[in-house]
Amino acid sequence: MIFQSDNSAAACPEVLAAVTAAAPATAAGYDADDHSRQLDGVFSAVFGRACTVLTVGTGTAANALALAALVPPYGAIVCHEDAHIHVDECGAPEFFTGGAKLMLVPGAHGKLTPAGIEAALASHRGDVHQVQVRALSITQSTETGTVYTVEELAALGAHARARGWRVHLDGARFANAVAHLGCHPGDASWRAGVDILSFGAIKNGGLSAEAMVIFDPALVEDIRLRRKRAGQMPSKGRFNAAQLLAMLEGGVWLRNAAAANAGAARLAAVAGPDAGVRLLHPVEANEVFLALAPGQPEALRALGYGFYDWGAAGSNEARFVVAWDTPAAAVTALAEAIAATSG
Amino acid sequence: MIFQSDNSAAACPEVLAAVTAAAPATAAGYDADDHSRQLDGVFSAVFGRACTVLTVGTGTAANALALAALVPPYGAIVCHEDAHIHVDECGAPEFFTGGAKLMLVPGAHGKLTPAGIEAALASHRGDVHQVQVRALSITQSTETGTVYTVEELAALGAHARARGWRVHLDGARFANAVAHLGCHPGDASWRAGVDILSFGAIKNGGLSAEAMVIFDPALVEDIRLRRKRAGQMPSKGRFNAAQLLAMLEGGVWLRNAAAANAGAARLAAVAGPDAGVRLLHPVEANEVFLALAPGQPEALRALGYGFYDWGAAGSNEARFVVAWDTPAAAVTALAEAIAATSG
Amino acid sequence: MIFQSDNSAAACPEVLAAVTAAAPATAAGYDADDHSRQLDGVFSAVFGRACTVLTVGTGTAANALALAALVPPYGAIVCHEDAHIHVDECGAPEFFTGGAKLMLVPGAHGKLTPAGIEAALASHRGDVHQVQVRALSITQSTETGTVYTVEELAALGAHARARGWRVHLDGARFANAVAHLGCHPGDASWRAGVDILSFGAIKNGGLSAEAMVIFDPALVEDIRLRRKRAGQMPSKGRFNAAQLLAMLEGGVWLRNAAAANAGAARLAAVAGPDAGVRLLHPVEANEVFLALAPGQPEALRALGYGFYDWGAAGSNEARFVVAWDTPAAAVTALAEAIAATSG
Amino acid sequence: MIFQSDNSAAACPEVLAAVTAAAPATAAGYDADDHSRQLDGVFSAVFGRACTVLTVGTGTAANALALAALVPPYGAIVCHEDAHIHVDECGAPEFFTGGAKLMLVPGAHGKLTPAGIEAALASHRGDVHQVQVRALSITQSTETGTVYTVEELAALGAHARARGWRVHLDGARFANAVAHLGCHPGDASWRAGVDILSFGAIKNGGLSAEAMVIFDPALVEDIRLRRKRAGQMPSKGRFNAAQLLAMLEGGVWLRNAAAANAGAARLAAVAGPDAGVRLLHPVEANEVFLALAPGQPEALRALGYGFYDWGAAGSNEARFVVAWDTPAAAVTALAEAIAATSG
Repeated sequence: MIFQSDNSAAACPEVLAAVTAAAPATAAGYDADDHSRQLDGVFSAVFGRACTVLTVGTGTAANALALAALVPPYGAIVCHEDAHIHVDECGAPEFFTGGAKLMLVPGAHGKLTPAGIEAALASHRGDVHQVQVRALSITQSTETGTVYTVEELAALGAHARARGWRVHLDGARFANAVAHLGCHPGDASWRAGVDILSFGAIKNGGLSAEAMVIFDPALVEDIRLRRKRAGQMPSKGRFNAAQLLAMLEGGVWLRNAAAANAGAARLAAVAGPDAGVRLLHPVEANEVFLALAPGQPEALRALGYGFYDWGAAGSNEARFVVAWDTPAAAVTALAEAIAATSG
Repeated sequence: MIFQSDNSAAACPEVLAAVTAAAPATAAGYDADDHSRQLDGVFSAVFGRACTVLTVGTGTAANALALAALVPPYGAIVCHEDAHIHVDECGAPEFFTGGAKLMLVPGAHGKLTPAGIEAALASHRGDVHQVQVRALSITQSTETGTVYTVEELAALGAHARARGWRVHLDGARFANAVAHLGCHPGDASWRAGVDILSFGAIKNGGLSAEAMVIFDPALVEDIRLRRKRAGQMPSKGRFNAAQLLAMLEGGVWLRNAAAANAGAARLAAVAGPDAGVRLLHPVEANEVFLALAPGQPEALRALGYGFYDWGAAGSNEARFVVAWDTPAAAVTALAEAIAATSG
Repeated sequence: MIFQSDNSAAACPEVLAAVTAAAPATAAGYDADDHSRQLDGVFSAVFGRACTVLTVGTGTAANALALAALVPPYGAIVCHEDAHIHVDECGAPEFFTGGAKLMLVPGAHGKLTPAGIEAALASHRGDVHQVQVRALSITQSTETGTVYTVEELAALGAHARARGWRVHLDGARFANAVAHLGCHPGDASWRAGVDILSFGAIKNGGLSAEAMVIFDPALVEDIRLRRKRAGQMPSKGRFNAAQLLAMLEGGVWLRNAAAANAGAARLAAVAGPDAGVRLLHPVEANEVFLALAPGQPEALRALGYGFYDWGAAGSNEARFVVAWDTPAAAVTALAEAIAATSG
Repeated sequence: MIFQSDNSAAACPEVLAAVTAAAPATAAGYDADDHSRQLDGVFSAVFGRACTVLTVGTGTAANALALAALVPPYGAIVCHEDAHIHVDECGAPEFFTGGAKLMLVPGAHGKLTPAGIEAALASHRGDVHQVQVRALSITQSTETGTVYTVEELAALGAHARARGWRVHLDGARFANAVAHLGCHPGDASWRAGVDILSFGAIKNGGLSAEAMVIFDPALVEDIRLRRKRAGQMPSKGRFNAAQLLAMLEGGVWLRNAAAANAGAARLAAVAGPDAGVRLLHPVEANEVFLALAPGQPEALRALGYGFYDWGAAGSNEARFVVAWDTPAAAVTALAEAIAATSG
């Protein structure tokens, strides 16, 4: 009955099996082990391009390290005003970059557009008195459960490139987006101009490791050093690497994400407009945002459902997240409870 | 014909005389000289309360040092979305604080209100995933040439205090505000809950020194060390101190500010509504913001007038600043030129 | 044949079992799970004092977060010149503290003494032009495999307290020290004045989690926020917590450490003076430092032994680390190989 | 009777005249004025090479901004263990660089040598676990009043270049060194491989401005932005620029420095070995370091002389600084007082 976050989900069997297999062995530390050495090759094959993969312990670390590599301390990063890097990382980007600024851009359903970016920056002169915009950070899937199309991503990437900005993709739920789009992972990343992808695994059945997928080799050495300095270089790196390899092997990452997406779609279908509840955003990944009725959040919590309030205090907006392992019956029960409390 | 900024103004005779008098002497370095030792006493007398005064080289330094003393690196500072600390300091607050975040609040005519602040923070939860709001920064006079009343300031200060926030006042044009209000300087600072005032002098006839006026003695030691570390502790501190003392002596600071205010008021009267030009903001200090006609900025520049465009590119909005030493004839000529080019 | 580091060791069965048990469950994220909630109680019982425990991903993170909570950016931390925080963390303390300085103190066998500290600081005035010493960081067991006695620790703690400094203990190998001393864990930490202990687990049979043990409740909230901001707050915190709980349960941590210590003692006995090889430091924990003969490092590597060179390049000094799981036969074989190549 | 520091000296007439001349004018702000625009040309002519000059308010700011432009946050800067950037800037280099580390090198009479640097770094591996050495910072004249020869400087510069390091020269007393050497300023800076020179003016008869002389054009834009962000970009930049121009015009900087040097030489001659007092360092610039007798510091202070104790507490070592304006009679009197109290 936990719909707060996919962080509450189990670790999937493949990931656990990989950790279990790696546990008894003796191996070189600090990424010199056999698992870690496979990362670049496996990710390069999946993404269709040579890349370097460094594991870290949290998505926040992946994002903040990426941004620190992309902008100077006097830099600025354009992102959506709802972006996790702004709202939910306790200032990690500012910490890791040495005080760069996030330039917030509004946009419907959590999405940036080139026009929206231009409008938000219309009065930014960019002279010596102001921070220098140097990067764009895109969240895919977005904070509101929508997914940029490949064309939308490519347009954003081209917009950034034309201005000389680097591009970061916060892919805490990248798997959900790719599963939704049915596209090649490269189409949703480097082909759209992405320099560094924060590849989320923990929410998607992982245990304790995320990955930075670095498409620009010129950035790697800098990130390696920043990662060590940030306490993000694991001494027994094989346990991080084993989790990521298990995720990619046989497409577990897409299987898990597709399951979560399907659950969310079903929840939206049953608990949404048909049940008299307004969907706040299109449901394209594994999150469902609902405009509940006054009193309904309390009623659902009284029934034992866990979820986050969203938006401003008192707005009765709520977010429900379906995870890779959420039982179908739990989704059905929640949908029925929403319908039952909605009027 | 320079109306870009009061930064373009001359140093006033009293300030120059003080520097000249201090120049040939031998004196102890690093604030141990006779001039520096008088600062606390002179400012305390003027402000009606014991305070500590530390000089710095720019308003940006005064602001950023103040904020660094008031919030931790994971802190947040509430300020107006037009605030100089956000728009025109190249990220100095983020640098000095170690990456704190500015929480931007909109508000008519550059002014914050308690209600506006609450609305802007409505969805900020303040849990461990988010930066912690710890300070309010107010600009007086504001970035758009308006002046908070004593009551407005007191309401903001009380609002901050009730939430446990510290209060910073960016007083780059504090003198203009006090001259406009005709109030006691304490009413516009510590009596309204201000912990640290950035006391502007350079724009107001100074040469190269600004002052931090610290009303909370518990903050002083921390600021002294941060100031040294920031390269803002002058080795020949007497030259900074002498400028500030000359400003306060005999009310030079208010005399200069009143002259600038009067010039702006006259410009507004002649070039404003009567001449068919819309004033964007009430003119209460020494800045006049006008909605010019298409082509008018270019026409005025062709006549030799210097000023900043304001707002979004292409908006034809312009800012004219009158300084303490702007000749009356220059104001008159500008007013006539605006009228003549207005359509 | 890996003697480079205890980082190369396996995860011990108890730790793996705990992770395995936690994997399939659904649990609240971000330390709100049942495992995480047990941490404070279990550690408090073991240490004999109420404490707060926060897990992180590396020892570097534990150390740097602790130091950031103990000193301001203009602060200084006294530590041994060989300390891991200075030599092997790529500047993490400087990063997390916002640029504090490490004040390096020499000392025989990796140990600090009050007299050594005083001598090193003799010319440090501590005025406004200098960083402010605010903390002492002690490494136990030391970087050279020695162990402070309880009395030595207490003397250092008292020395720090008398000067108003806070105390951090880098306990990457704290278990080895306690196992060697046979003392109560509290005697080697809070009773000696320690404010924050970096409690090492990964080298000692752990998988991917270390712990910060915070004895001063006033520091906890600050560290929680810095930890989140540093990307060190795990979203599935139960996996970190489960590892730590498994370590403490039934004294696994001391059992593992004792095994490693015993192996090192045996290596030292067989390969040391009796075999004509000089021990550089007393062997009190699980590390053996040897002054090898010219050519001997190469000879041992040719036999397949892995270890780190130590000291200056070309010194022929070497470090051998015995882990909790190093087979007795491997230690014996190494000892014989050292003897065989020593002359 | 102030021999504490050349910071206590007067501003010289040429500097004051320049400020006075600039005071009444209206001028563009932020380095767009006529004085500021002359800086590059005047310095380029004096140094014999195109360079960019940016003024700042303190030597600490010049040094810290330079280092921030030369090394990344995970970088390290090699410097003498007595360097001002380490001892007397309250951690400014660490603040401005984002936490880089100073690698301290001992050396007789305040001087670095290539061999000394190599010895100090002998055990620094430079792998991913360690900070990355990227710059060398040299102080000329040194903290102990000695002066590197042109050949010594060139050797240090070549050593740095061969390792891929950038070179910073802390020239708080650069004028004294050039006056002593009688060399071309370029020989003591860019011809020796210096990328950025902190050109000291305040101690040498200036008022409130120092200069960064940047010989590598690729660094300029970065420094401009860091300078603004550090609150070091003066709004009335003409007053800074005017001081520097007055210093260079007609060789005032060398005239002042030569006067100070001559005074120090005379003090050393009269009060040194001939009077039974040991000189701690050769006197080559304007500082004299003496090993006084027990009780002698107190005796001299009782006579009204001001100076700094040096070295460890209780060492009876003292520093006497002669400034550009120290009267010959005052030097004579001090020399006699030293002789009279020496035993």
